[in-house]
Amino acid sequence: MLGARGGWQALRRCSSLSRAVRLRVREALGAREPADEVKVQGWVRSVRAQKEVLFLHINDGSSLENLQVVADPSLENRDLTFGSAVEVEGKLVKSPHRMQNMELKAETIRVVGPCDTWSFPLKMKERHPLEYIRQFPHLRCRNNTLGSLLRIRSEATAAIHSFFQDNGYVHIHTPIITSNDCEGAGELFQIEASNEARESAEKTHFFNVPAFLTVSGQLHLEVMAGAFTHVFTFGPTFRAENSQSRRHLAEFYMVEAELSFTENLQDVMQVIEDLVKTATSTVLSRCPCDVELFHKYVAPAQKDRLEQMLKNKFVTISYNEAVEILKQASQTFAFKPEWGCDLQTEHEKYLVKHCGEVPVFVINYPYDLKPFYMRDNEDGSQRTVAAVDLLVPGIGELCGGSLREERLPFLESRLQRLGLADTYQWYLDLRKFGSVPHGGFGMGFERYLQYILGVDNIKDVIPFPRFSHSCLL
Amino acid sequence: MLGARGGWQALRRCSSLSRAVRLRVREALGAREPADEVKVQGWVRSVRAQKEVLFLHINDGSSLENLQVVADPSLENRDLTFGSAVEVEGKLVKSPHRMQNMELKAETIRVVGPCDTWSFPLKMKERHPLEYIRQFPHLRCRNNTLGSLLRIRSEATAAIHSFFQDNGYVHIHTPIITSNDCEGAGELFQIEASNEARESAEKTHFFNVPAFLTVSGQLHLEVMAGAFTHVFTFGPTFRAENSQSRRHLAEFYMVEAELSFTENLQDVMQVIEDLVKTATSTVLSRCPCDVELFHKYVAPAQKDRLEQMLKNKFVTISYNEAVEILKQASQTFAFKPEWGCDLQTEHEKYLVKHCGEVPVFVINYPYDLKPFYMRDNEDGSQRTVAAVDLLVPGIGELCGGSLREERLPFLESRLQRLGLADTYQWYLDLRKFGSVPHGGFGMGFERYLQYILGVDNIKDVIPFPRFSHSCLL
Repeated sequence: MLGARGGWQALRRCSSLSRAVRLRVREALGAREPADEVKVQGWVRSVRAQKEVLFLHINDGSSLENLQVVADPSLENRDLTFGSAVEVEGKLVKSPHRMQNMELKAETIRVVGPCDTWSFPLKMKERHPLEYIRQFPHLRCRNNTLGSLLRIRSEATAAIHSFFQDNGYVHIHTPIITSNDCEGAGELFQIEASNEARESAEKTHFFNVPAFLTVSGQLHLEVMAGAFTHVFTFGPTFRAENSQSRRHLAEFYMVEAELSFTENLQDVMQVIEDLVKTATSTVLSRCPCDVELFHKYVAPAQKDRLEQMLKNKFVTISYNEAVEILKQASQTFAFKPEWGCDLQTEHEKYLVKHCGEVPVFVINYPYDLKPFYMRDNEDGSQRTVAAVDLLVPGIGELCGGSLREERLPFLESRLQRLGLADTYQWYLDLRKFGSVPHGGFGMGFERYLQYILGVDNIKDVIPFPRFSHSCLL
Repeated sequence: MLGARGGWQALRRCSSLSRAVRLRVREALGAREPADEVKVQGWVRSVRAQKEVLFLHINDGSSLENLQVVADPSLENRDLTFGSAVEVEGKLVKSPHRMQNMELKAETIRVVGPCDTWSFPLKMKERHPLEYIRQFPHLRCRNNTLGSLLRIRSEATAAIHSFFQDNGYVHIHTPIITSNDCEGAGELFQIEASNEARESAEKTHFFNVPAFLTVSGQLHLEVMAGAFTHVFTFGPTFRAENSQSRRHLAEFYMVEAELSFTENLQDVMQVIEDLVKTATSTVLSRCPCDVELFHKYVAPAQKDRLEQMLKNKFVTISYNEAVEILKQASQTFAFKPEWGCDLQTEHEKYLVKHCGEVPVFVINYPYDLKPFYMRDNEDGSQRTVAAVDLLVPGIGELCGGSLREERLPFLESRLQRLGLADTYQWYLDLRKFGSVPHGGFGMGFERYLQYILGVDNIKDVIPFPRFSHSCLL
């Protein structure tokens, strides 16, 4: 992850009086030449004392791989245990082992922070199941799997930002606290000043109006697309879904983009496909070892699927076709497929399987199924809208997008029928001042991570497992 | 902003049947060679019809500068007004004007979206004051100043992400919803499911415990620094301060970083200084015209100050010295300076002026002024802690940081005295398992933008002015 990038100036200016050069584990492992007077700091992942030599493996989170330290047994001490933090100075030399480039011949080993091994919930050389480590939200990041996950999450975040910046999108921080509920659909979180603050304020609502946590930045992004043409946001969104499911979180991250001067749904789909492919190939090339851990131990089929995905064009079917495919399926569904009804997860998974376990765009959904801002296809009286969902193997819906209704009369009459014309006066207003055909989409970031890594439970792709009493740190 | 970066593939795959190549305004302005069959889309910033020629200026948000379009008067039509959206096809040619590289000779002009000029609150060629445009949160981004501000905000965001990634930091999304209040200080927002959702849930708290919007990701970042050594976050934080001040927002962005194996406060200060300098020089080089607009019309003194800042090492004084300087000041303060009291904004501004209007680190604050997690300097009985604030011209405090108390006995006794040992059991726990000297800091992103641009009111550096009834979109 770190190798391809620039210098390490900030890390090297260490204040110690020692002349040793401070290296991260990843740098030491990747060094081309041996070096004297090197200092490496990290946490002990294994200790093995033989008669004539002491072996340590240390890890500082810069990579999945540990650095092997070779030392004289006289350097052993009783605090040098699994989990303890150490600072090792010595010579970086070529390793005699085939699997490893470099190792560190220790001259001094200092235990900076001992570890109470007895009560430490992680054990040396044990592969703990994800369910086990989820119980220790403040310690699980020291486990290999979560370490890899969080490095991948960090790289994927960077890759998504770069994709949009490289393509001329302006990044916008859309409001977290808002008075609009976007789709009028999701269960909302409401916010108020905490009791203490509220009493002193002596009013009903802190902001004079009810205020909620955002469920989507889309409408705010549309405002900005009317000035910058291409904009994106990547931030937290919230749903008060009272669910313990493996598929939902109350707090999750969304990537959203809006594009002005977009007359065709294909243009929106092309950006989605480019985003998914670019981000994925960047992550695969930046942290190959971390991804391999998942593809080896968590989801063995995933590696081939991603390679196929990267090589082939995504499949597109219409909602009409999707319903026909489902109706003709030999499989029986809990929800009977019918034109006009939403696709359920079981339907989405069937469609993906039917198309060969590849990503599938489903386009042109029934008008009545979709929110007010989606563009009427005028293929009958309010029959379908120019909406698209991207379904992917193992997950179902990964992205959702549409052309937005840019025509004032269409939008006005729809909002009036819904009794929302007053609420969205500002949104209608935008259609009066140089309104252009435009579209956009959103992608759930956690679902994206689940998809590329083959992780079943969404709680395993976030930094802190949350939303039970003991876990809401 | 966009010039230095990669291709524009996604934009070019336009679905139109025309053979014209679609260019953003910025690309057209920067083109090296003339080109036939070019298409540019954007919003009209001015229309000037002469007898023999029609001049348009169009802008698509990719740059502050407009593209000049030259057309035959026969192409004029009554919808071609200020604020309307147009699509222009023609030839890109060298401009005869010294101030401009290229202009577009129009062959066709299509008005994509007309503008109701009468009710449009922005007027042609008028420089609207920031206070005026703040009234139109959904339209103000079409104004030059806000356009520049948001391009700068986007570039600054990217520059800060790059700084940390280039230096080997792992990016962590720390929780927005949390049960901890970090410093026990700020006024908190509390969250619950909205009424409807709550009734169906039939319980007092959605998460079983009271839940708040984060005021800082620091404690969560410390968890991660114990695995990845260097980590950062950059996300929204919240304070329910019931204030209409020019200095505070209820929702604002914080950059926070934590560094393990950091024994010296100087190391934290070096990262702060590197961050501020690197981000600023990146922004200055990526959007020079946008920055120039602020340095020309909003804060004329700011340009020289930034150049000085980039060239010189930041000044460091101790809190003791700061109090002495303030006591000897000829100025009278509303708050009398006294050892043991917090520095007020008036004090901070005086100190910055005293040091020559440059950034000033103030270090080693009184123990009792600072939160429980700051490291005791042991220079007397709980006299000072290893804390640092960075003060900058025009703003006062821009960053705050400290070494964190890594020693279990020190932390345990302090938390016990505060009656918080139970609440922070998990935080104490971290000190048992390979705890290392570490430190970190936070920087308010909006204050950073105010600082580099010389913007007085913090509401003018956010995408949507908020927190009054009409503005909470």
